[in-house]
Amino acid sequence: MSNSTLPQGRNERFPFELVRPQLERVEASIRDQVRAFDPAVEPYVSYVCNTSGKRIRPALSILAGGALGNVEDGHVKLGVILELVHMATLVHDDIIDGAVTRRMVPTANAKWGAGLSVLLGDALFSHALALATEFNDIGICRKVGIASREVCEGEIIQTQRRFDLTLTKADYFRIIEMKTGALFAAATGIAAAISGADEATEAKLYDYGLKLGTAYQIYDDCLDLVGSEEAVGKTLRTDLEKGKLTLPILNLLDCSSESQRSKLTKRIVEQQPLDLPVLVGIAEYEGAIESAVDTAQAMLGTCRDHLVGLPGGEYVEALEQITRFLGALLEKCRR
Amino acid sequence: MSNSTLPQGRNERFPFELVRPQLERVEASIRDQVRAFDPAVEPYVSYVCNTSGKRIRPALSILAGGALGNVEDGHVKLGVILELVHMATLVHDDIIDGAVTRRMVPTANAKWGAGLSVLLGDALFSHALALATEFNDIGICRKVGIASREVCEGEIIQTQRRFDLTLTKADYFRIIEMKTGALFAAATGIAAAISGADEATEAKLYDYGLKLGTAYQIYDDCLDLVGSEEAVGKTLRTDLEKGKLTLPILNLLDCSSESQRSKLTKRIVEQQPLDLPVLVGIAEYEGAIESAVDTAQAMLGTCRDHLVGLPGGEYVEALEQITRFLGALLEKCRR
Repeated sequence: MSNSTLPQGRNERFPFELVRPQLERVEASIRDQVRAFDPAVEPYVSYVCNTSGKRIRPALSILAGGALGNVEDGHVKLGVILELVHMATLVHDDIIDGAVTRRMVPTANAKWGAGLSVLLGDALFSHALALATEFNDIGICRKVGIASREVCEGEIIQTQRRFDLTLTKADYFRIIEMKTGALFAAATGIAAAISGADEATEAKLYDYGLKLGTAYQIYDDCLDLVGSEEAVGKTLRTDLEKGKLTLPILNLLDCSSESQRSKLTKRIVEQQPLDLPVLVGIAEYEGAIESAVDTAQAMLGTCRDHLVGLPGGEYVEALEQITRFLGALLEKCRR
Repeated sequence: MSNSTLPQGRNERFPFELVRPQLERVEASIRDQVRAFDPAVEPYVSYVCNTSGKRIRPALSILAGGALGNVEDGHVKLGVILELVHMATLVHDDIIDGAVTRRMVPTANAKWGAGLSVLLGDALFSHALALATEFNDIGICRKVGIASREVCEGEIIQTQRRFDLTLTKADYFRIIEMKTGALFAAATGIAAAISGADEATEAKLYDYGLKLGTAYQIYDDCLDLVGSEEAVGKTLRTDLEKGKLTLPILNLLDCSSESQRSKLTKRIVEQQPLDLPVLVGIAEYEGAIESAVDTAQAMLGTCRDHLVGLPGGEYVEALEQITRFLGALLEKCRR
């Protein structure tokens, strides 16, 4: 891929060909879940479940199972559960952001209002956690519950620390590890537990997911600055407007000249939206993006290290390929 | 209690004296839960957890344990879990209703806005379900998850069927069994499972909770019409404004004269708020309330039937006393 191409953004197709048949089973099972709900609630759940997503978390669960030697029904089920949790968080995110479309179709919030959407997200959430009990394994239920809680906590902290100049990079990493890393890590880590892996292997696969999710969020945060709305297919520059201090912005605050930094911090302290022309005009802007890309690339390197020695040939390769794919997307963020 | 007294409303004190020490443990444990959260999230959780509630669900769990012969730590823990689920739903209800105060203090919604409150409810929800895994009993986790889902589903159906004249009494009962009955039933039913009760006993105690919760909701629905705002301490007539067709309204539609019914249905079809003077002017208004009270009283009778033969002396008496207490509150709704 050439550096001159614009970032494609969120419509990128991850290399999940190897597990396409199992992902079809995930789709079918997600559609089946609507039957667990009261008939009067079914249409709402069905609408949300039919909204296509990339199904990254299910793919990771299945690939991790394969990487340990065998894809089991449990890996498919775990994928369904984590995707339901993810969908619940999206329904709620759309309320919080006042989003009217997602993946080209109206959000639940736009169709039925915030009230019903709050409840719909809750119903999906509780259903996912009830579904987790089908594993008959209390440890798995606990891990799913804790990962779900971490996602919410990460988002709470992010909301709380908007326009907050005391936010450190350590705070930023903690936030994105929780809000995005936790469910990726649950996908690969719990998949290892399902495969009966030893503790060390489970820890490695957990960290693969955690680092991959974190790198993915850094990519998303860079894309919000450098992406083209047309190519990405969603509203960008929202982080700036909402005062979210992401890694490229924190890098910029670190390395810009005194006068430029004071201009930036003044806007942040006054809770004024940052605007892109101001940022781009700062000499260190490109370096700040580059440095964020470097950080994410280092994480992807750690992901690959964790794969060494796993038995599942082509599945291990696929997990490596995912890190390369995300790495290539990240490279496109450099100017 | 005299029938001439106005309904006291939501500040009524349920007769929980017998289990006061265990309820203190519930309070302490709820306060302890904040430590499970990230330090940055603690203050929000702590604020919501310190808002005093009646703790009906924990009391029912503990009393049901006692009624079966022994209050165990598990009954206290179950009470904590169900109260956390209940608190999560209240945080979300306050967003949906735009409520600014609850029990005389600002709601999370009023203090921090809808966005943070959605996430805070989610975090409480997922924490409650993670806490349920401490039972090391997959059956209990599943029951907690399903009860939580039912609460959300009941509220979704209620939201969906506002101003809907095709709503039958069967629909109404299904809605309130889900939105209020499910967590009461979980309190007494799961408590029986913790005590190792046989299936028939568990089913009886489950139904005790279900009927008690349903009767409690009918009381709440009558109170919304006949209560005094001053005595009740919260905004009333909201069901009318929101087009919620509660049992007394459904009774009124059933038994009012043709011309009165058509006046009522016209307002409902046009989604105009029903207003109280119109209702009170209908000859059958008092009868409609009386009939709803009768229905709830019959449920409380069934609750008492379920208690026959349980071993736990004073705890069984306390469970009976609760039905009498609620019965007396209901009687005050008659004119």
